Amino acid sequence: MKTRAAVAFEAKRPLEIVEVDLEGPRAGEVLVEIKATGICHTDAYTLDGLDSEGIFPSILGHEGAGVVVEVGPGVTSVAVGDHVIPLYTPECRQCKSCLSRKTNLCTAIRATQGKGLMPDGTSRFSYKGQAIAHYMGCSTFSNFTVLPEIALAKIRKDAPFESACYVGCGVTTGVGAVVNTAKVEPGANCVVFGLGGIGLNVIQGLKMVGADMIVGVDINDTKEEWGRRFGMTHFVNPKNVSDVVAHLVEMTGGGADYTFDCTGNTTVMRQALEACHRGWGESIVIGVAEAGKEIATRPFQLVTGRVWRGSAFGGARGRTDTPRIVDWYMDGKIEIDPMITHTLPLERINEAFDLMHAGESIRSVVVF
Amino acid sequence: MKTRAAVAFEAKRPLEIVEVDLEGPRAGEVLVEIKATGICHTDAYTLDGLDSEGIFPSILGHEGAGVVVEVGPGVTSVAVGDHVIPLYTPECRQCKSCLSRKTNLCTAIRATQGKGLMPDGTSRFSYKGQAIAHYMGCSTFSNFTVLPEIALAKIRKDAPFESACYVGCGVTTGVGAVVNTAKVEPGANCVVFGLGGIGLNVIQGLKMVGADMIVGVDINDTKEEWGRRFGMTHFVNPKNVSDVVAHLVEMTGGGADYTFDCTGNTTVMRQALEACHRGWGESIVIGVAEAGKEIATRPFQLVTGRVWRGSAFGGARGRTDTPRIVDWYMDGKIEIDPMITHTLPLERINEAFDLMHAGESIRSVVVF
Repeated sequence: MKTRAAVAFEAKRPLEIVEVDLEGPRAGEVLVEIKATGICHTDAYTLDGLDSEGIFPSILGHEGAGVVVEVGPGVTSVAVGDHVIPLYTPECRQCKSCLSRKTNLCTAIRATQGKGLMPDGTSRFSYKGQAIAHYMGCSTFSNFTVLPEIALAKIRKDAPFESACYVGCGVTTGVGAVVNTAKVEPGANCVVFGLGGIGLNVIQGLKMVGADMIVGVDINDTKEEWGRRFGMTHFVNPKNVSDVVAHLVEMTGGGADYTFDCTGNTTVMRQALEACHRGWGESIVIGVAEAGKEIATRPFQLVTGRVWRGSAFGGARGRTDTPRIVDWYMDGKIEIDPMITHTLPLERINEAFDLMHAGESIRSVVVF
Repeated sequence: MKTRAAVAFEAKRPLEIVEVDLEGPRAGEVLVEIKATGICHTDAYTLDGLDSEGIFPSILGHEGAGVVVEVGPGVTSVAVGDHVIPLYTPECRQCKSCLSRKTNLCTAIRATQGKGLMPDGTSRFSYKGQAIAHYMGCSTFSNFTVLPEIALAKIRKDAPFESACYVGCGVTTGVGAVVNTAKVEPGANCVVFGLGGIGLNVIQGLKMVGADMIVGVDINDTKEEWGRRFGMTHFVNPKNVSDVVAHLVEMTGGGADYTFDCTGNTTVMRQALEACHRGWGESIVIGVAEAGKEIATRPFQLVTGRVWRGSAFGGARGRTDTPRIVDWYMDGKIEIDPMITHTLPLERINEAFDLMHAGESIRSVVVF
């Protein structure tokens, strides 16, 4: 079949909207009509050529929501008409990782996904006879896309696609880091570094679980209002204090119980660790750092009880936990709508990247 | 009163055995006759002038066992005749740390202990009228010493002093890191870096809790026999493999569930983290690094599920957990006697430092 898609033909070039060829689903695969997709920093990271493993040409996009239109042989977990969220972190429920009970990082299709291919080692997309790579196993910048069934979360049908798509990455990454990775308990004092699309979701996750202090840190003062909108109780602009770590330790009465880095800046990651309380404070790295950058600290920070951990896709098991986060949104326990600052048609998708780079959007969503 | 003690009059000089003056216990304090004391790397670290906060003159030693001979006003938790282990990590059961349920790092007397003083801000030791500093709140290189009651673990009377003293630091640090900090579960694959007095105790802790693979790593081949003696199942000398991290990941089928650094070397600490299994592997820093040294890694290691934490005094609450470890020794669940390679009188204490520096001892114990 033919489908409209925004194709990344090469790095550092705008996406081009073209009609590409899409093969139907093979065994264990599902054809999905994407109804809406968010634009995330990770898409820009790849498009800007910063990802040394980026593949071109490819169809980017990994934060979508849509409807199942066809299933391949053997597919049992979803059916035509189901509403689904594509998962860049699948959940096979069979591999060592899924069975460990300790991680969400399913490894069933990792090797082929990293190469931009379906599990059988081929691509379903092509343009003028040349293969186009899948991206993060999702390629939601295409109106129709094919995914393995283990990479689809079935969600309730009354959830709007324009907001549910954000659960496919940003919402789950932020809320999940609080709930699944840090397991923050009520009454905790927490610090969130970076009040963008992830940080705001960490903040509303902290509010949901009953944290006491929710301190937001950002070098942009305009973010204060955004943070307070979702439950932030205190704001710190590091530019206004001489030593941000000492300031936060003082504010939190000895250090935070939990801190979250949502910046991707390795210097900030160190500050986030060192702002933790001696004895038990845990710092969660969420942001993706530039290639080659390293984090560092004195080991004394760990020996005296601070813990350094990370979170990918909010520690959420894709098929099991993502639908619950959609429920939390529909039940009013978390918000999504106010974070979606821009909604655009596919034809204007490059504007969404511009808005993100300019810091003018929290989230832009493209609707098909 | 007078007491014999090995005094560190200045850094980088041998200890001198002299008679010092010791004041009796004040309110909340206890006079203890030390019967035996181990010599630990931390004593040497201070004596060698590597600790920038080292104080001289002082009476070193922090790994002892003895008998209560007098109690000051208000002391209720120990009585004359009780057998006790001095605690450099006290347990007041009242401070924010003790009440957090999350750490063993009681802060009740931290400020004065760090200055070589009793909680009231004075020293009980003097020599020719000049004050001598306490060390780590213990000063077990003195035949008699005074401690706050919150820094004394009461232990059973049938435990020999010469072996029980080792529970005051090395045994608890190693076994406790497994039991309290890492909470290793049966069947886990583990790697221990550095097979000295701490590493061997990590190994026997892992054996006790039912770990599957217990891989020991040391650049000294003679340590293999020692490791196997206490439960090590595999040995790796990094000098014999091209890439020790890759080798360990291969050996453990994808990486270790838990790794332990018992070297204090920051390069090894990084290897220990990176030898952990993607998704859940946890690395525990136990070793004390040189002043100014830092640990580093790519944040990707954390984001993909590895956890970096540390352990001090094995995460053990001094008064609550230390007596249980003595019980485990008496019940034959862990061993101590074979690790005590040298027993010396106080007059020969400097030989114990020489043996340690030469790598000829696992543990030397001085008996009074």
